[in-house]
Amino acid sequence: MVIMGIDPGYAIVGFGIVDYKNSKFELLSYGAVTTEAKTDFSDRLIRIYEGIDSLIKKYRPDAIAIERLYFTSNQKTAIDVAQARGVILLAARQNLINVSEYTPLQVKGAVVGYGKAEKKQVMEMTRVMLGLKEYPKPDDAADALALAICRAHSGDSKRLEQEILRKGW
Amino acid sequence: MVIMGIDPGYAIVGFGIVDYKNSKFELLSYGAVTTEAKTDFSDRLIRIYEGIDSLIKKYRPDAIAIERLYFTSNQKTAIDVAQARGVILLAARQNLINVSEYTPLQVKGAVVGYGKAEKKQVMEMTRVMLGLKEYPKPDDAADALALAICRAHSGDSKRLEQEILRKGW
Repeated sequence: MVIMGIDPGYAIVGFGIVDYKNSKFELLSYGAVTTEAKTDFSDRLIRIYEGIDSLIKKYRPDAIAIERLYFTSNQKTAIDVAQARGVILLAARQNLINVSEYTPLQVKGAVVGYGKAEKKQVMEMTRVMLGLKEYPKPDDAADALALAICRAHSGDSKRLEQEILRKGW
Repeated sequence: MVIMGIDPGYAIVGFGIVDYKNSKFELLSYGAVTTEAKTDFSDRLIRIYEGIDSLIKKYRPDAIAIERLYFTSNQKTAIDVAQARGVILLAARQNLINVSEYTPLQVKGAVVGYGKAEKKQVMEMTRVMLGLKEYPKPDDAADALALAICRAHSGDSKRLEQEILRKGW
């Protein structure tokens, strides 16, 4: 099954796309949809919406995993990230993709096996599981790949994989 | 000039559409795009996006006024309102409509002439300016109409109106 992880933001939206088959990962693509700070905010939303929509149409993921939002002390940033996340969810749903949300704790638990793991450990496990020589860049793309791995390791994912095999999708 | 006011939300998105000409208002439409609580959140975003998009395509506003978000103590609600607001801004911008944001203080100041006016006074002035017998319902639609009036009374609006008259739009 093809899984797309998305690390939401309004300046950098990290994405990572993997094919998960027989408990193994094949890396399909990773990177970031980026927007310019000087651009009108609504235009940044259009760029994010169109960027995610075209990635979905290209890779046709069976599932999308996106980070759950939690609040920081910077409310302006939080509002803008949430607004960007809204258009990402819209693009996913319009393409009829199943979307799951995970907290950073869940991602760490699924990738490293320990919810309080350090960021470095998560990046190292992500690198090893995907058979990469170096850490994926930018960090937002590495976070998105970790989200995709988390989705693959969730029980729901195993059921979905079996369903896909059975139906011959 | 046709102005659309939008009071963002994810359960109820209030809208109010007026034609502002020679310093007078003609009410074109008002109401709310509503979504069911039991529905998947991404499906609610689709409903809001499509609802606002079809209103824009029907009334072709020259400008949209939307409430600026401010944070409440309920962070979950704030995130969801921001996500919904993101798809509203997307629909507006995809239709190439000029969008302005106003705080409740600015709306009160523009409608009643006093930033600390009570909600009741704002509703009464909105009712009188639009020549209505009763307060528009739901409250979200009344708030959206007040936003449209605020936009009409802004200096920028006067310039835009003159531009429209000059260009014969």
